[in-house]
Amino acid sequence: MPRIAYFGPSGTFTEMALAQFESAGVFDAPVERVAAPSQGGALDLIRSGTVEGAVVPIESSVEGSISATLDSLAIGPRLQIVAETELEVSFTILAGTGTTLADVRLLAAYPVAGAQVRDWVSRHLPDAQMFTSASNAAAAEDVVAGRADAAVSTALAGERLGLTALASGVADHDQAITRFVLVTRPRVAPPATGADRTSIVLELTNEPGSLMRAFAEFATRGIDLTRIESRPTRTGMGTYRFYLDCVGHIDDTAVAEALKALHRTAGRIRYLGSWPATSATGTPPPSDEAGAEWLIQLRKGVADL
Amino acid sequence: MPRIAYFGPSGTFTEMALAQFESAGVFDAPVERVAAPSQGGALDLIRSGTVEGAVVPIESSVEGSISATLDSLAIGPRLQIVAETELEVSFTILAGTGTTLADVRLLAAYPVAGAQVRDWVSRHLPDAQMFTSASNAAAAEDVVAGRADAAVSTALAGERLGLTALASGVADHDQAITRFVLVTRPRVAPPATGADRTSIVLELTNEPGSLMRAFAEFATRGIDLTRIESRPTRTGMGTYRFYLDCVGHIDDTAVAEALKALHRTAGRIRYLGSWPATSATGTPPPSDEAGAEWLIQLRKGVADL
Amino acid sequence: MPRIAYFGPSGTFTEMALAQFESAGVFDAPVERVAAPSQGGALDLIRSGTVEGAVVPIESSVEGSISATLDSLAIGPRLQIVAETELEVSFTILAGTGTTLADVRLLAAYPVAGAQVRDWVSRHLPDAQMFTSASNAAAAEDVVAGRADAAVSTALAGERLGLTALASGVADHDQAITRFVLVTRPRVAPPATGADRTSIVLELTNEPGSLMRAFAEFATRGIDLTRIESRPTRTGMGTYRFYLDCVGHIDDTAVAEALKALHRTAGRIRYLGSWPATSATGTPPPSDEAGAEWLIQLRKGVADL
Amino acid sequence: MPRIAYFGPSGTFTEMALAQFESAGVFDAPVERVAAPSQGGALDLIRSGTVEGAVVPIESSVEGSISATLDSLAIGPRLQIVAETELEVSFTILAGTGTTLADVRLLAAYPVAGAQVRDWVSRHLPDAQMFTSASNAAAAEDVVAGRADAAVSTALAGERLGLTALASGVADHDQAITRFVLVTRPRVAPPATGADRTSIVLELTNEPGSLMRAFAEFATRGIDLTRIESRPTRTGMGTYRFYLDCVGHIDDTAVAEALKALHRTAGRIRYLGSWPATSATGTPPPSDEAGAEWLIQLRKGVADL
Repeated sequence: MPRIAYFGPSGTFTEMALAQFESAGVFDAPVERVAAPSQGGALDLIRSGTVEGAVVPIESSVEGSISATLDSLAIGPRLQIVAETELEVSFTILAGTGTTLADVRLLAAYPVAGAQVRDWVSRHLPDAQMFTSASNAAAAEDVVAGRADAAVSTALAGERLGLTALASGVADHDQAITRFVLVTRPRVAPPATGADRTSIVLELTNEPGSLMRAFAEFATRGIDLTRIESRPTRTGMGTYRFYLDCVGHIDDTAVAEALKALHRTAGRIRYLGSWPATSATGTPPPSDEAGAEWLIQLRKGVADL
Repeated sequence: MPRIAYFGPSGTFTEMALAQFESAGVFDAPVERVAAPSQGGALDLIRSGTVEGAVVPIESSVEGSISATLDSLAIGPRLQIVAETELEVSFTILAGTGTTLADVRLLAAYPVAGAQVRDWVSRHLPDAQMFTSASNAAAAEDVVAGRADAAVSTALAGERLGLTALASGVADHDQAITRFVLVTRPRVAPPATGADRTSIVLELTNEPGSLMRAFAEFATRGIDLTRIESRPTRTGMGTYRFYLDCVGHIDDTAVAEALKALHRTAGRIRYLGSWPATSATGTPPPSDEAGAEWLIQLRKGVADL
Repeated sequence: MPRIAYFGPSGTFTEMALAQFESAGVFDAPVERVAAPSQGGALDLIRSGTVEGAVVPIESSVEGSISATLDSLAIGPRLQIVAETELEVSFTILAGTGTTLADVRLLAAYPVAGAQVRDWVSRHLPDAQMFTSASNAAAAEDVVAGRADAAVSTALAGERLGLTALASGVADHDQAITRFVLVTRPRVAPPATGADRTSIVLELTNEPGSLMRAFAEFATRGIDLTRIESRPTRTGMGTYRFYLDCVGHIDDTAVAEALKALHRTAGRIRYLGSWPATSATGTPPPSDEAGAEWLIQLRKGVADL
Repeated sequence: MPRIAYFGPSGTFTEMALAQFESAGVFDAPVERVAAPSQGGALDLIRSGTVEGAVVPIESSVEGSISATLDSLAIGPRLQIVAETELEVSFTILAGTGTTLADVRLLAAYPVAGAQVRDWVSRHLPDAQMFTSASNAAAAEDVVAGRADAAVSTALAGERLGLTALASGVADHDQAITRFVLVTRPRVAPPATGADRTSIVLELTNEPGSLMRAFAEFATRGIDLTRIESRPTRTGMGTYRFYLDCVGHIDDTAVAEALKALHRTAGRIRYLGSWPATSATGTPPPSDEAGAEWLIQLRKGVADL
């Protein structure tokens, strides 16, 4: 039975994403779920050999990339993303029996969640203090432990812990979607499907135009960049690491050529994987089949070309 | 006496940055400091006419751009950055008299600060719960109010509130620097100094290569991009707003030409200002004086060119 | 009465082009036509102050650029193109009275003309030797002087010299068009019409990518290059001078910016003029009026942009 | 015994180039030399199966590309360049015994040669008429046949025909070099040497920026373009065919990728061959060995990269 870590404890959206992966048949066999206290912690369980895979959130349509996940993927032994799934995210405000919204003084929330309900809280709980929980499920546990009056959490956590929902569907932005990825040790990528995503991390040499040249490797080859995130490398103001997603698969010639070119010209490149995209955005890179066949004929000296 | 808002309350690093602006003679007259509860709140005080300017943090060498500041600059009536200053940031752990590190169960912290002392806390206060405060100074106030046992805060806040420093110089990363900016209503930019920064926000039309083309407007003109941050526009997964800083001033011809070109080709561009850079990074754009003079001669029909 | 040189003697296509300029009202007053023995000779008459202008062929749709004209424009004191006209070119085979095609052993031809009737000659005069004349009209004169049996020439030359047309409308390629230009000393360019041509000569520094960068100055600014000719600089194998035509006028902002940029980055640039195009090819460069106005407002500090 | 055509008749520089190929051991066996009346004629002898190869001039450091050769390579069944050699070219003025320079009224010259001695002729033979010969050797034959008084020709032709040299080393430009190529039917290219030349013909779709995009395929991959010639396609003013030489070999990955990309994006591309360059100009394309190996490891899922 494969052991799969997730950013827990039980009741987080990440556990729901893991369940979604299970329903979709991503795993060959039933999995043993292993809760980890942070995104980085879940990924480190793969590196230590404790689990075979881990599910972590990677991007929110509201808050953008999940820094903790990106940083953990960029640093330390290389891991590989092999699948993704998306969840529409809205929150449930949980409290113990008998508590009403008017009673809430201390509200437990995971900061990423807190940021997505800020407006709702300022309207409905203007006097509440925000208490930092380690995850959406941990926020519910903080209520059970008496450390907070209510929690910004998930319906699933409420059910598990027997808490009451003071409000549900809470979200400042409609259609807040979070993307989760399944990460493993480096392996052969899942086969190309024609609607794939490839992800890399670039650290560029500090010459003028180096970013421009890196982007040109994609643009010239007709490859669509769908995500560009910069994060400081923490080695000084003004030095960045770039997280790039493009449409396509490492087995697509155009993508392979761009990766090789970046390996040669960019300061440092880390490949994070190629996998089927759930929501198709962007245009697949052009096929080079005709060109490859033409090249073979040219090299053979075939006349009629 | 000009009224200048800052992300407060009194005792934040932002207030220290405001003091630094005052010492540097940025203001003509003594200023009245007005604390605001958030970065966005400080900026809105300019928009409402309550203050003439506001000081807000914009970028940390550890955490990257301050999202709340960027988002508030990108949305709503346009404001303009007119000056910057930098602070080396490390934290002081404050508590009431008699409290020791071993006593700390509930630790108040502003999330940006919490992220920068995470390792220190897990080593020195492994059992402490993190309590979300609204700012570094507010964390100290949460201790005074009895809502937390200790605070991740500033020495200044400790002095003001009479708290004890359990630890000082606390920071997971050496040389953590935060850049703060002085923002006003749109105005004539301060004169070019030869070491300036210009900042814009771009929302690009969703065509392949549009980002590449936008970058080419800078690269072709020899303009150095020093910061590229993408943030979701919150209108759906995969649509981004780009925050770009370049070396140079709106009165430099190369920068002016790039801005005009982006105004024509990019979906939406917002100019956030040109101002003297404190730490020089990158190369100033090339002068076009010789070329401009040559062009004038050509247009006049001068022969010997 | 302005004196205008042309590539003669009387009876050349170039004289017909000069007549076309006269009919079109290009000159304010009747002109005195001055025949010159070569394209370079006609241009040198401007440089020596003997004439005010000169008409020379610059490009053939069959043979490409006229090297002698281009080289003479690129070297020596700068001159300026101020107008263009086009002629559909076909040749008349001229001979003395009584001569038939079967009698022709020695055929006089200007080499550019010879190249355009090569197929016709090999079919109709397979045994004729080709005699090099200095121009199309000079070929007819060579017949009159008894140096050749027949001439590849123009109907006009036949009329002037009383020769018989053995064949007319002779051309290997349909719709062979030659473009002629009116050249003067450097002067203020004729006003922009919205359908203009600008011409430059570039000598690039011998670094990899320098040509690419030069082209990017046009492409980035949306300027259409309509002619790219390379000619050896005669200083060694592999060093070239580039003759570029683009759509637009030196008074168009985009063109002016590209010229200034090339002045700064390219090894050497010579401006050959901006003038109305007779046959519109390509798209005019984008207007920057909206952007220029926006920039003025930004610099003034206007709020609502 | 392989039959090799050359642009003749006997005594041309092209025959000297063929001799140079023979001395260099390009052929396995002694060759039978077959004179052809023109460059296109020599190439057509390959197409008709009459000869196995042909030697033709392709570029002069003074006059630029030899149009007749380029056009014949671009049109009709594809041929392939497999070797090159270079000759320093200066001319010999040949005449019959007893003739002096003062006696020369009619001077036979191949037009390409005539263009390279124009200044010399105007100084030394100001009254001579130029007679068009079909090649440098044919000019000497025109003297022998009494059709001209003297010839712009080669020393070799003088020896063969027993003519006297009135002047030798005649050339308006020092170091006039002509490059000749050996052409065959399409075949496997000679092995890469690390200092190779690859030649292609491009006909671009008539969209703005198409030339720029074509060049970007080379520039992005670090491939040096060493020759760019445009020639009208003869289908109308303003439509061109581009002849491009780059440093590198079809077996170099970068070159192969650029060719494939152009096959996909350019209107029409014809490959003219890859062969060892005699005079090294430009930098070889970057090797992708390290990148290719890295890619293989990535695809296998190797961890430590």
